[in-house]
Amino acid sequence: DSLLKIAGKTFQSRLMTGTGKYRSIEEMQQSVIASGCEIVTVAVRRVQTNAPGHEGLAEALDWGKIWMLPNTAGCKTAEEAVRVARLGREMAKLLGQEDNNFVKLEVIPDPKYLLPDPIGTLQAAEQLVKEGFAVLPYINADPMLAKHLEEAGCATVMPLAAPIGSGQGLQTIANIKIIIENAQVPIVVDAGIGLPSEAAQAMELGADALLINSAIALAQNSPAMAQAMKLAANSGRIAYLAGRMPIQSHAIASSPVSGRINE
Amino acid sequence: DSLLKIAGKTFQSRLMTGTGKYRSIEEMQQSVIASGCEIVTVAVRRVQTNAPGHEGLAEALDWGKIWMLPNTAGCKTAEEAVRVARLGREMAKLLGQEDNNFVKLEVIPDPKYLLPDPIGTLQAAEQLVKEGFAVLPYINADPMLAKHLEEAGCATVMPLAAPIGSGQGLQTIANIKIIIENAQVPIVVDAGIGLPSEAAQAMELGADALLINSAIALAQNSPAMAQAMKLAANSGRIAYLAGRMPIQSHAIASSPVSGRINE
Amino acid sequence: DSLLKIAGKTFQSRLMTGTGKYRSIEEMQQSVIASGCEIVTVAVRRVQTNAPGHEGLAEALDWGKIWMLPNTAGCKTAEEAVRVARLGREMAKLLGQEDNNFVKLEVIPDPKYLLPDPIGTLQAAEQLVKEGFAVLPYINADPMLAKHLEEAGCATVMPLAAPIGSGQGLQTIANIKIIIENAQVPIVVDAGIGLPSEAAQAMELGADALLINSAIALAQNSPAMAQAMKLAANSGRIAYLAGRMPIQSHAIASSPVSGRINE
Amino acid sequence: DSLLKIAGKTFQSRLMTGTGKYRSIEEMQQSVIASGCEIVTVAVRRVQTNAPGHEGLAEALDWGKIWMLPNTAGCKTAEEAVRVARLGREMAKLLGQEDNNFVKLEVIPDPKYLLPDPIGTLQAAEQLVKEGFAVLPYINADPMLAKHLEEAGCATVMPLAAPIGSGQGLQTIANIKIIIENAQVPIVVDAGIGLPSEAAQAMELGADALLINSAIALAQNSPAMAQAMKLAANSGRIAYLAGRMPIQSHAIASSPVSGRINE
Repeated sequence: DSLLKIAGKTFQSRLMTGTGKYRSIEEMQQSVIASGCEIVTVAVRRVQTNAPGHEGLAEALDWGKIWMLPNTAGCKTAEEAVRVARLGREMAKLLGQEDNNFVKLEVIPDPKYLLPDPIGTLQAAEQLVKEGFAVLPYINADPMLAKHLEEAGCATVMPLAAPIGSGQGLQTIANIKIIIENAQVPIVVDAGIGLPSEAAQAMELGADALLINSAIALAQNSPAMAQAMKLAANSGRIAYLAGRMPIQSHAIASSPVSGRINE
Repeated sequence: DSLLKIAGKTFQSRLMTGTGKYRSIEEMQQSVIASGCEIVTVAVRRVQTNAPGHEGLAEALDWGKIWMLPNTAGCKTAEEAVRVARLGREMAKLLGQEDNNFVKLEVIPDPKYLLPDPIGTLQAAEQLVKEGFAVLPYINADPMLAKHLEEAGCATVMPLAAPIGSGQGLQTIANIKIIIENAQVPIVVDAGIGLPSEAAQAMELGADALLINSAIALAQNSPAMAQAMKLAANSGRIAYLAGRMPIQSHAIASSPVSGRINE
Repeated sequence: DSLLKIAGKTFQSRLMTGTGKYRSIEEMQQSVIASGCEIVTVAVRRVQTNAPGHEGLAEALDWGKIWMLPNTAGCKTAEEAVRVARLGREMAKLLGQEDNNFVKLEVIPDPKYLLPDPIGTLQAAEQLVKEGFAVLPYINADPMLAKHLEEAGCATVMPLAAPIGSGQGLQTIANIKIIIENAQVPIVVDAGIGLPSEAAQAMELGADALLINSAIALAQNSPAMAQAMKLAANSGRIAYLAGRMPIQSHAIASSPVSGRINE
Repeated sequence: DSLLKIAGKTFQSRLMTGTGKYRSIEEMQQSVIASGCEIVTVAVRRVQTNAPGHEGLAEALDWGKIWMLPNTAGCKTAEEAVRVARLGREMAKLLGQEDNNFVKLEVIPDPKYLLPDPIGTLQAAEQLVKEGFAVLPYINADPMLAKHLEEAGCATVMPLAAPIGSGQGLQTIANIKIIIENAQVPIVVDAGIGLPSEAAQAMELGADALLINSAIALAQNSPAMAQAMKLAANSGRIAYLAGRMPIQSHAIASSPVSGRINE
């Protein structure tokens, strides 16, 4: 299996995590390690505003090993997202990641389900690509929007499995399959995954990577769940490459049982 | 996590496999190793009749490490199954497993879907328990039948996820949940699992172990799929113990984003 | 479409209902009428013990038009069920249905999920068939058990969609399909249906009839839901006979759009 | 139940159909009648180009009773769709529907899955609203896009259940629920419905109407399937208003069976 490659940078792990919603910094640290992830997304605005759990983030993780993925959570419009993306680039520099131009683009006007705005996301993506960002946009699982974003130069597309933080699993399978079939860039399934079986399922469909936060942070034992998600992502990837058995209405007898029982 | 314990014997792996349907002995050997399994089920009648792929089974696996689970595949009635179970015990002895009294009980009159007969299975189980066997009966996912078998002294109950060899995944979830909730013996989900995500799902529900054969043997790359199933079984077990996040209609905001964007 | 025929008796409606769980006798009466059903099941023991809502049942429905289906709810063993079935026959006679030998056989030792006992059900069925009953056994969706019951002379088989009163819908589709494929007697899907879409789905699979009680009685507007279930059962039956379109990954273009737009 | 109201016009039927893909004009005519629909969508470009099955459409249906919904199938861009919408208005006039300003807006650059373009659809919708059209846009099930279109003045939003002509059923349930929850305009579920159970399900979720074409036209018996869809749409609507029973893990005993069996 070749490595995951995003915007020219390669990663061994196909599981990305976040830093939000943990009960403590320690639990977050242990979970990030247990997940084996190499990319951690961080809400720029939460860091800027010293939101609970986001103080001391510079020291909390080993940024020599973990690639930061600044995200624009909390931005309702394209303009806000562009500004916050720029702040994210500064943040990455402060952490010593001089060449980190990644941004997870979230344009979310919806206060309840936190669903992304397709129009604003595309506008912001176009602007950020112009400014040299590697843009990883968070979107609803709309194959045509995914295509627009790819054509606009985005580094990946990140369709949602279900609303953020819902843990409902893959509610958008049919569209995610089409997105994967059509894509030339890596597809990262983001949001909604609640269980390892769902993580494995997304990878089995051919997703290139996953971003999972709430399912780990809100599990009763977060580091254990992080490890489970790591195994599941690997498992699904290996299965995708191994090629599944055909689904059948019933077994095809391959070695018939015949003859007399020898007593 | 405590180990899997069946009839007083403990196992580290919660994944069992079989020997049927492989394209070659080598592929079977590699897959059994890659799966990390400690229990391999063998069709007694196929060995007795030297069915293709069952010659040289004594040498094919390391029976010092792998616990053989003789099965009564090909038996249509309780009587046949009892006789074949006895043959299986002899087979185990020949392999050097003197104290192996395990039998995977299959009473299958159905030539198409290979579904087990609840009545014949219970009769054979009662007889085999009397004769000192550790009986692991293969059944449709009927919670009341599972209870009867447990009360008859069976060592486990092995409800099917879907018809053998179908690869359809968990088609009997609601009943399997109830079986698990009610059981005092280990529940082994057997038959129908086609993908690692489905293996993980069964373990997340609280199954104690899995038996997977076709999904590995009929994958395009069997040893790789065996490894994927190993990871998935582990993943699902860890997640079951870790305690999943609650499913929600939408995210509960835990760290609100507020304040002005600092430029 | 030919009529539903059970034990030599024909019915136009393929929806059966019950009398339990209603908030009032009036609501039950209106719902039975709105459902268009011709068969209503009645719990013999609830009538015998004058359970709430079961007083005055003789007058509550027009037993000249409605065929009573006495059921053995509350029986934990085959013996109890046989005795209650005999009482049911007497009850039918008192209502003027001299030739009514129908009994819905329920042998339910499970106090929580009210799941039927396959062993006790088969025993009771064999006895009742001997005594000349038209036996309609309520079972878990086990195709092999269904076959045993058919061979024992039962008039129908009534597999459950999900636990009684759960409203979870078709949780046993794969097994119900096989039961339908194998059966020579009418298959009545019983228990678990919560919505008209689920009723339609069962009929689309080829079920011959449905028994729905809780979904109607516990709806906010019971008579309206009864009407909805009537329409759904008809709809599903018509669709089954009409033959569905094939499921496709995408449309097959049948009339290509070509040429220039004429302005 | 109040009537379906779209752009100030009221309809009794909540099922819309189309004219494409039928094997003959006669079958189409019979199916439209059997469906009880009052709105039929017609592909303007297919009429313009005299595509097979679209000759003589003026005479084929009773346009005094059926409201024509011209659609812009075959348009890849907003510009094309706007032009074709204008042609559609002329077509309606020729059929005697002087005041018919409806247009089903389809902007579909995707040749395989025929998925709509969110960006082009919004652009065309804004233009057509300006020109006085009652716009019914066909979209992927994206709640934020639905909101944009509603705010742009569209008369309805028509999210897809699954790709057009696929018959896969409700693959986008989670998003359709949110669209319905958020909408002030009628929501018409369009595309992908293959069976009456799926039609009923969409209505049970609270959809205001359905557009079903392939499932009827490609059924083995189209007029029968049209009737089944009519019943299913009614059934689902009635159930939505009636209020379903709660889903439960098991039955809540309402009338306990106690006391002795009276022999």
